[in-house]
Amino acid sequence: MTVNRSATALVEVPRGLAGVVVTETEIGDVRGREGFYHYRQYSAVELARTRRFEDVWHLLVHGTLPDPARGAAFAAETAALRRLPAGVRAALPGIAAAGGGAGPLAGLRTALSLLGAERGFRPVYDLDADRRRTDTVAACAAVPTLLTALYRLGRGLDPVEPREDLSYAADYLRMLTGTEPDPRHVRAVEQYLISTIDHGFNASTFTARVIASTGADVAACLTGAVGALSGPLHGGAPSRALDTLDAIGTPDRIDAWIRERVLAGDRIMGFGHAIYRTEDPRSRMLRETALGFGGPRVRFAVEVERRVEAILAELKPGRELHTNVEFYAGIVMELCGLPREMFTPTFAAARAVGWSANILEQAADPKIIRPVARYVGPEPRVAVPAAL
Amino acid sequence: MTVNRSATALVEVPRGLAGVVVTETEIGDVRGREGFYHYRQYSAVELARTRRFEDVWHLLVHGTLPDPARGAAFAAETAALRRLPAGVRAALPGIAAAGGGAGPLAGLRTALSLLGAERGFRPVYDLDADRRRTDTVAACAAVPTLLTALYRLGRGLDPVEPREDLSYAADYLRMLTGTEPDPRHVRAVEQYLISTIDHGFNASTFTARVIASTGADVAACLTGAVGALSGPLHGGAPSRALDTLDAIGTPDRIDAWIRERVLAGDRIMGFGHAIYRTEDPRSRMLRETALGFGGPRVRFAVEVERRVEAILAELKPGRELHTNVEFYAGIVMELCGLPREMFTPTFAAARAVGWSANILEQAADPKIIRPVARYVGPEPRVAVPAAL
Repeated sequence: MTVNRSATALVEVPRGLAGVVVTETEIGDVRGREGFYHYRQYSAVELARTRRFEDVWHLLVHGTLPDPARGAAFAAETAALRRLPAGVRAALPGIAAAGGGAGPLAGLRTALSLLGAERGFRPVYDLDADRRRTDTVAACAAVPTLLTALYRLGRGLDPVEPREDLSYAADYLRMLTGTEPDPRHVRAVEQYLISTIDHGFNASTFTARVIASTGADVAACLTGAVGALSGPLHGGAPSRALDTLDAIGTPDRIDAWIRERVLAGDRIMGFGHAIYRTEDPRSRMLRETALGFGGPRVRFAVEVERRVEAILAELKPGRELHTNVEFYAGIVMELCGLPREMFTPTFAAARAVGWSANILEQAADPKIIRPVARYVGPEPRVAVPAAL
Repeated sequence: MTVNRSATALVEVPRGLAGVVVTETEIGDVRGREGFYHYRQYSAVELARTRRFEDVWHLLVHGTLPDPARGAAFAAETAALRRLPAGVRAALPGIAAAGGGAGPLAGLRTALSLLGAERGFRPVYDLDADRRRTDTVAACAAVPTLLTALYRLGRGLDPVEPREDLSYAADYLRMLTGTEPDPRHVRAVEQYLISTIDHGFNASTFTARVIASTGADVAACLTGAVGALSGPLHGGAPSRALDTLDAIGTPDRIDAWIRERVLAGDRIMGFGHAIYRTEDPRSRMLRETALGFGGPRVRFAVEVERRVEAILAELKPGRELHTNVEFYAGIVMELCGLPREMFTPTFAAARAVGWSANILEQAADPKIIRPVARYVGPEPRVAVPAAL
């Protein structure tokens, strides 16, 4: 009935909870020294190379890769859920217009919250595992429709209705651009989406789990996670690497530009990662994808990568600074026709599936996440001064 | 540029982060063994007894109790911000209708997210301390207007426009009921609001801080916190204590009803607290408020409290189970004319001020909160099975 937290010994931990093991998980992991990460027991990069998005989504939330029949059924289930409830559709113009266009990610936060209410999501602890999963699938399936509608409405364009005969990735591109997408673009975006579903623990995943630990509904968890992802220290970066390419401009300016930035102590966007001491495996895969498209933009990016790594190795020896996922993700999304303001929202679309797996895992083992703070202000007094 | 988390020693901590010190704070604390809690250096109960809500709000977000002139200016500033932007007003009927009426708390989650976009909230790390504070004040000031409009729209009633000449508590009650509130009700609700602004660390406060630690905007932080508060293990309780009174029905049934529940191992709603080993100081204050109103309902509540404590002391000796804040908070809110479905939303309105203080404190000391998880699933393999 009660736990006497006052009597519990306080536990000191590193700032920002760095290295603090807050949970066990069967969802996946990152092995920074091996340059390897996985979903369940499968290499994430291999999944991206060989599977479609819906199969990996199934792996994350059901725990297994589906056989062909089951995979087709899950794809059909999710395609049908791409269609928005009428109340959400009606609200989207207002959400897109808020603040003169706060952007698709802020809009997604609002729209997912509304979608959960419209779909009748209930507290996860009041639901069985199947119904919890159904709520996560309904939310994730709607994300492409929400994001593309918010983007188009923000530009004065009508939203494009979803089509059930298309895959998640294909319909996402089609609803965004309003035209039939190139299958090579669809597959490249699909591989990007698969590769970013999950990537160890991070602030948005942790946010989703803290909210889920209170028993709140799936929309509450996902809304919080989208909010965390919108923070500049977390998800706000995929388009900045392209900004670096733009700022450099031409191959002859690479060396001077990079040296100046590094010597000034600036961070070079698109390089360096908190965990990997090797090349980021997502970067390797996306570079291959970019090279498959070819063209001057890709050649320029490869040249920038080569020079930055050489200069960083010279000026910061031993630091092992390589391109991170942002660098070639930006190139690939650009090649596939995604506008820069949709880079982070696209990341959010994929990550929603990873958050979902984490919400489901957290909800299966009810225990509220509630740490403590240490008061370090002035010693309190009971009496409040009567007159100030 | 990078931190090699792989090389960081992992830190093992209790499940749910119980007792784990995640931050230092100057906002306040709870002293469970003393039955005392405080905001900054002042007793929270004394603040509730002697101050108005706006003054304590100022204490939380500015750090000081205002002098009379400053207090009047802050009250005027917040009263003006009670008026909603046009885009938010226009969206409220749709939000209130979602899912056939998902309730004011789910509606608040959506509406605060939209309000942040409409007001142009920006990432907290991109703002100076004054502008960050302004964003939190704009959000908290709008909460009474949002909640009362959502409640009324859900019942087919027109929202009531805010009035700048009224205090937060008075306008909240007026916008809820559509009539001039009894000053005794206003003061009782105001004391309840002050007493629940903050109460040590908890899951919603922690959620707000995790999101703030990524640099996300104030609406992202508050939306996540509202979501966490909506979880049944966190904020979902204030009306359940009244349900207990209703279930007992009459004084002669108290003993049999309570004994049956306790012997069955059920929790008696409104009794017991995770931290206090004494009477909950909020409960003591709210009991006094209730006794000031008097009447048969209050006498019945006091009798239930007396009997439950006696029976719990007999059946669970040494457990020190007393009424918690829910018990008399429910009675007081009922006496003041608040419908039960507004109990938790009213709690959220007060707590938004506490979350704001935590967001501001977190944002002043940038460091992402990012713990780790331990993978315990099957050993991963690189190759994905080709055929399933």
